Amino acid sequence: MAWSLHPIRTFSTSKIQAMLTTELSEAEVSALRANKERLAEDLHHSCQWGYGIRWGEGPTDTGMQRLALSEEDRSVRNWFIKTMQDLKCNVTVDEMGNIFAVRPGRRAGVPPTFIGSHLDTQPTGGRYDGILGVLSGIETIKTMNDMGLETEGGVGVVNWTNEEGARFPISMISSGVWAECIPLEQAHALQEVPTVASLPTAASAPETMKSALQKIDYLGDVPCSYKSTPMAAHFELHIEQGPHLVSAGQRVGVVTAVQAYKWFRLNVIGRDTHTGTTAFEHRADALYAFSRMMVRAREVAAAKGCLASVGIVEAKPGSVNTVPGLVSFSLDIRGPETELVVEVEKELRSEFDAIAAAEGAGIGKPCRVEWTLDFDSPAVKFHEDCIDCVQQSAHAVVADAPVADTKSLVRSIMSGAGHDSVFTSKRVPTSMIFIPCKDGLSHHPEEFSTAEDCATGASVILQAVVRYDRKRFT
Amino acid sequence: MAWSLHPIRTFSTSKIQAMLTTELSEAEVSALRANKERLAEDLHHSCQWGYGIRWGEGPTDTGMQRLALSEEDRSVRNWFIKTMQDLKCNVTVDEMGNIFAVRPGRRAGVPPTFIGSHLDTQPTGGRYDGILGVLSGIETIKTMNDMGLETEGGVGVVNWTNEEGARFPISMISSGVWAECIPLEQAHALQEVPTVASLPTAASAPETMKSALQKIDYLGDVPCSYKSTPMAAHFELHIEQGPHLVSAGQRVGVVTAVQAYKWFRLNVIGRDTHTGTTAFEHRADALYAFSRMMVRAREVAAAKGCLASVGIVEAKPGSVNTVPGLVSFSLDIRGPETELVVEVEKELRSEFDAIAAAEGAGIGKPCRVEWTLDFDSPAVKFHEDCIDCVQQSAHAVVADAPVADTKSLVRSIMSGAGHDSVFTSKRVPTSMIFIPCKDGLSHHPEEFSTAEDCATGASVILQAVVRYDRKRFT
Repeated sequence: MAWSLHPIRTFSTSKIQAMLTTELSEAEVSALRANKERLAEDLHHSCQWGYGIRWGEGPTDTGMQRLALSEEDRSVRNWFIKTMQDLKCNVTVDEMGNIFAVRPGRRAGVPPTFIGSHLDTQPTGGRYDGILGVLSGIETIKTMNDMGLETEGGVGVVNWTNEEGARFPISMISSGVWAECIPLEQAHALQEVPTVASLPTAASAPETMKSALQKIDYLGDVPCSYKSTPMAAHFELHIEQGPHLVSAGQRVGVVTAVQAYKWFRLNVIGRDTHTGTTAFEHRADALYAFSRMMVRAREVAAAKGCLASVGIVEAKPGSVNTVPGLVSFSLDIRGPETELVVEVEKELRSEFDAIAAAEGAGIGKPCRVEWTLDFDSPAVKFHEDCIDCVQQSAHAVVADAPVADTKSLVRSIMSGAGHDSVFTSKRVPTSMIFIPCKDGLSHHPEEFSTAEDCATGASVILQAVVRYDRKRFT
Repeated sequence: MAWSLHPIRTFSTSKIQAMLTTELSEAEVSALRANKERLAEDLHHSCQWGYGIRWGEGPTDTGMQRLALSEEDRSVRNWFIKTMQDLKCNVTVDEMGNIFAVRPGRRAGVPPTFIGSHLDTQPTGGRYDGILGVLSGIETIKTMNDMGLETEGGVGVVNWTNEEGARFPISMISSGVWAECIPLEQAHALQEVPTVASLPTAASAPETMKSALQKIDYLGDVPCSYKSTPMAAHFELHIEQGPHLVSAGQRVGVVTAVQAYKWFRLNVIGRDTHTGTTAFEHRADALYAFSRMMVRAREVAAAKGCLASVGIVEAKPGSVNTVPGLVSFSLDIRGPETELVVEVEKELRSEFDAIAAAEGAGIGKPCRVEWTLDFDSPAVKFHEDCIDCVQQSAHAVVADAPVADTKSLVRSIMSGAGHDSVFTSKRVPTSMIFIPCKDGLSHHPEEFSTAEDCATGASVILQAVVRYDRKRFT
């Protein structure tokens, strides 16, 4: 439902008279709505760049494969900038290729309130993870422009680079640099993962983030820092990527926190040997040891209410009749509390050592394990002011739903995944909004949210930004 | 010890008077010896092409990486042909690039007795697997030439193409075509494995065996068949690649049989999803299912006295924070009897189905498993005549060892690995000779046999070929 159908005040799209956020009534704020059709059209339009695996008959029934800083990413970035400039926004690009588009407010010298997320995807990703967040920002600006709504502080939309960590294996790296939690030099030197499916450059030498930024002309000259590009707050709309909302029939999740997680790279070192002539008790089979570790990791994590996952595995030398002497794999441990993740890690270190020691013990040459920490994201609590704005907005947007207790359609929720909001929260008030997605599925071509749910989320973020502006300046 | 040190008859290297195998006394045959130093020198000389991983300080303390039909393989093939031509052998190359070098015998129109093995290696292989077999053939010809020993039938040395199956994933494929057990068209169309470490062409489109043969100029025009290149018999010297000889302090294994094995490629199909937001019970994690399968495979195989091994595994999409929805892996099942391998396969098919069905059951989208049989090699019994020749020769060669019961230094043994002799045995009398290798280790850079043990094996094969010639023609 578009905002203009709410006849509380007759808004004029001819912008004859400017409207100020600080002068709106509470009822008028609650009546603000994003345009469902326009949002859906823009979202799928932007998905023409990085078209992925087809899963259905419809024109938009495909996934996405838009790896960070690929040619497809360049195209969608160009479109994003053009779109925001047409909407009269000022666009800047920083040294990590983060794109900030700001619709000026009435006051000079105050930082804008940002809506942000990312346009890159997993190699077999979908059309909503990240993309919806940026597109809801565009839709917010379009709605404000149409209404002639003037904010006190500016309103910005930011596209963060390489949020997924799929091509360059540190997720949220560019918001991390912006927050000055990750050094720029480390980020610029980070090499792409050469095994990612269909990576355009897999055949050549791996690109670094810096060389990839240069290659697609997105190495900006604004320093990547919250000091150079300040924000008043950061709001992010995202699909839940989990089953809670969709299972409960709820429509909005007010995200209050993000679970803790740690990413590791592990090597298991055993001994190459012949598969046909080497008895089990004479093997130091690194892949067998890995398999036992993965099975055990689930047991240990589950017992503590945590998650442990392996997404990448590589066995060398990689020959049918040679027992692998080296296995490298990624390990992703998550949990609701930082301390729980540490406990799982500690237990797995001990368990993995025991598994390695047993494999090859018969020949006195046991396997061994090496751990490297790639990423450590402690649990995050979002900011009360932002959470309040989101909660009020969510209740307002679902208020016209045909159920007795519309408040039951909104719940507080913790994010299982990391998002750029994790890093922005370290510097500025931040919170997030979740909407349901089909089967809770994400990082999959069939990832899907209805146009209705997307518009609900966009309406919530539109109102939240307006409420935050009012909170700041009244 | 070189044969000439045995003063039973004064052999002249000036070849004034030809010596005939049929006229030698039993004692003279038993005194025949390969030249230890020359064999070692030739072997390490040939290992300059495809130099592998260094593991020690000595000049020959490296492994080998000489994938079939690589540039390194081309170089060693050129050297092999030049060497054999210099030794007055007639060389032919067939459509699979198999190289046959024949030292003519006294009789026309009878097939030669062959010594054969392979010059290709695993990606992280050593200096003895296959290489020793071909080099022992060269040494045999050199010794016969030096002695002026004339055989009735010719004596040939054959280098079989791609025995390892490491680059082109069917092992012994070219002896298989020669035996008319594998169609030429299938072999020519076989594509290389693109993930093999350091494969020179991994970055470009995968080569087929035919295109790779053409590329290195080894696509011969002789039909690849036992009908076009007939053999009287095939003898093969090989390192044991297992611990039995070395553990027992024995010096020669008389190989009477080869265990059965089957190679499969399996796919586990699950569902890509987000690692951070998907509870274990909502996952169809193909890699977790794989891990459980690999753990179970060892249990099932061990219970039946068989082996089950995974050498290759690939998980897609291959991203740290995406649960893999597709895992492909190789499975190599071996056992002393054909029927036992079938039993293990049958049990694993059922077990793997159960594991797959459990993973994803919570979301009604369980994993599933697909099996493809790549290779089926039933158990092989070698030929009594050849086994007899090897056994007599082995006892003769170790007869001067400083132990009370020299016969205890020789044992009958079953081969755990497949060899080209498996295919030759389908068409002509065949057997093999094993010598000890350090720690039973093979398919590893540190694979090692002493020069003494190599020469023992070469002396046995030299005598076996002479004995077989005498058996045929007296």
